[in-house]
Amino acid sequence: MHILILGAGGVGSAAARIASRRPFFDRMTIADYDPARPETLIRAIGDARYTAAQVDASNEDSVVELIRASGATHVLNAVDPRFVMPIFNACKTAGVTYLDMAMSLSVRHAEEPFTKTNIKLGDDQFAVADQWEQDGQLALVGMGVEPGLSDVLARYAADELFSEIEELSVRDGANLTVEGYEFAPSFSIWTTIEECLNPPVLFDKDKGGWFAAEPFSDPITFEFPEGIGEVECVNVEHEEVTLMPRWIDAKRVDFKYGLGNEFIEVLRTLHKLGLDSTEPVTVRGQQVSPRDVVAACLPDPATLGPLMKGKTCAGVLVTGTRKDGTKGSLYLYHVVDNEETMKRDDSQAVVWQTAINPVVALELLANGTWKGAGVLGPEAFDAKPFLELLAAEEPAGYGSAWGIVEK
Amino acid sequence: MHILILGAGGVGSAAARIASRRPFFDRMTIADYDPARPETLIRAIGDARYTAAQVDASNEDSVVELIRASGATHVLNAVDPRFVMPIFNACKTAGVTYLDMAMSLSVRHAEEPFTKTNIKLGDDQFAVADQWEQDGQLALVGMGVEPGLSDVLARYAADELFSEIEELSVRDGANLTVEGYEFAPSFSIWTTIEECLNPPVLFDKDKGGWFAAEPFSDPITFEFPEGIGEVECVNVEHEEVTLMPRWIDAKRVDFKYGLGNEFIEVLRTLHKLGLDSTEPVTVRGQQVSPRDVVAACLPDPATLGPLMKGKTCAGVLVTGTRKDGTKGSLYLYHVVDNEETMKRDDSQAVVWQTAINPVVALELLANGTWKGAGVLGPEAFDAKPFLELLAAEEPAGYGSAWGIVEK
Repeated sequence: MHILILGAGGVGSAAARIASRRPFFDRMTIADYDPARPETLIRAIGDARYTAAQVDASNEDSVVELIRASGATHVLNAVDPRFVMPIFNACKTAGVTYLDMAMSLSVRHAEEPFTKTNIKLGDDQFAVADQWEQDGQLALVGMGVEPGLSDVLARYAADELFSEIEELSVRDGANLTVEGYEFAPSFSIWTTIEECLNPPVLFDKDKGGWFAAEPFSDPITFEFPEGIGEVECVNVEHEEVTLMPRWIDAKRVDFKYGLGNEFIEVLRTLHKLGLDSTEPVTVRGQQVSPRDVVAACLPDPATLGPLMKGKTCAGVLVTGTRKDGTKGSLYLYHVVDNEETMKRDDSQAVVWQTAINPVVALELLANGTWKGAGVLGPEAFDAKPFLELLAAEEPAGYGSAWGIVEK
Repeated sequence: MHILILGAGGVGSAAARIASRRPFFDRMTIADYDPARPETLIRAIGDARYTAAQVDASNEDSVVELIRASGATHVLNAVDPRFVMPIFNACKTAGVTYLDMAMSLSVRHAEEPFTKTNIKLGDDQFAVADQWEQDGQLALVGMGVEPGLSDVLARYAADELFSEIEELSVRDGANLTVEGYEFAPSFSIWTTIEECLNPPVLFDKDKGGWFAAEPFSDPITFEFPEGIGEVECVNVEHEEVTLMPRWIDAKRVDFKYGLGNEFIEVLRTLHKLGLDSTEPVTVRGQQVSPRDVVAACLPDPATLGPLMKGKTCAGVLVTGTRKDGTKGSLYLYHVVDNEETMKRDDSQAVVWQTAINPVVALELLANGTWKGAGVLGPEAFDAKPFLELLAAEEPAGYGSAWGIVEK
């Protein structure tokens, strides 16, 4: 296996570091628009299997050329979701396996954006699923932590724990703080605004499937495990809702993001004042995008890892009838501590938790435990070997525990 | 009397319109940095007593020159508070009567800004009060609505209603909304940020007089009269607190601004994200001040009058022992309705309520009811004739009622 990671940002770098402890692949190429980034990274990792390259991920031809020149067999897309389609199409053309951690973008419904869906996350990829399947080629989509591990956990619940599933509610929450800052998001405010202000998508069989809702709707307080505690969660657009119903039989699916009250209020306020807008305004004769100004006022999240403290949790709350006939809810989850991820891979918790999962998936593809053709989500595969490999102590596995708590 | 209004913005224009219905003065000159503004205004008013002029209010010499050239006897300062000192000093030099509606600016305490005061609002003006008094010259300071009418109402309470005053709490609240905007402040966001993020000043005899507090401290909910209803009020720096204790015997004085929960949250959020800052940040190679960007994203409050609906209330809550020996609280207040002020003077409610009071004061100075020398606040004068003239129906008075409600 020759892995090509596109993007040497936070997630791409963490994936490269995590993978370098594993023997399952022969070679890895890491490419970025700025070739200095993978070069610096590879020098720091010191793994003889690794090579740096340059690529323009927005340009399909550039990606095809790099795949062919490098001899890559598997491409892990670790760049901005805007570039999903050129990379996805390039992999099809080049005849290689494709993996991503965020899917093609949505387009809201023109007339009723907060009740109806139009183009959903991943729709552009699923539109060509038949061709991938016919050609025996695999696109493993949404294979980060959320989507990704959350989908694997849902699959596990469906196979091993429940006989009937009423609801799959993906829930993400953290207690991360950044020393010395009153307000410092641990991820790009620019992207968070984009994600949180899009209409969230929900799934309900009785309502005919997918539908849209208001941003920040249905707030609930959820108690996250391992000391994180209560966090306010709201509906946010996320791939799990468009993935899970394709392979798992559940009456309802949603995604609730534990943004916390404070963060929700900040995003609401930015929206109310028009400061989330990317349309330029004129300020003393200069044209500036308000959202860029907001980002410029906040610290760069990539630099915050050493100042961060706390844990982040990803998981799915499954409600239904268990195999033993009892009804109830279980939360299947994965918690990582920033202190640990900084020590292990010089990577902050949120980024590391995203990066470990595609590496585990690549190992399962390499050893033939996972195989398939078409455009497939993580829940299309057997969850048990994934979770075993993730949790097993090094060197047998990745030494990252997951858990189940009754709710 | 020849009145010179400096500044043909919202308040200056409204004062000119209100005054044009009164015969007490012979001439009025209206000056602005941009001479087109008073020219347009005067054409609209059509009062033969009015003349337009140009002035640089930041330049003391320019103001002296205009006073002398115009032959003005009374100057009403209706420009930004940053220009108080050059105008105030120019009036001293030119030997004319000075009026303003906001006083010289404060400078926070370097080490303990949220407990101790340093230079308070108006301190720079009071520092030369002796000279004004010795020369028999009058500076009537803080003569808008708040400060201004609120001080007159406090004086009235002290003279006519109470034998002993425990507390004077100035309270300002509104239920104004702006059609078509989710968030549209009825006054400059730039100035509001400045005012609200300064440490508020409070007065307590038992604590040795004036002291400072945290911005937005001591939130209370106050029910404003005439249908405005409950509004959340917090401590804000305001001139009344520095004026009232000089002439009225009260144990405590504070100012609580009914910003409302939503507005307070917006200001807190802007501060938390650094978007209140006037220090430029770099955005795609351009230098911009975040506060300017916030202002650019919001509609210009000067244009909102026709879209506004609702009422604004200014007043003072007086607590103590009444003349009849009973203890209790009375709220003395003045409410104006935007619909009425737009109809009467094409001026939105907040601006109009500020502008009417210096005109009433000028009329009392013109007919000799009010007279004095030195740097004097509104509470240094007899309140009864002011309130009678304000409330009396036109043409005897200004036809703007005030009220008292038991609390």
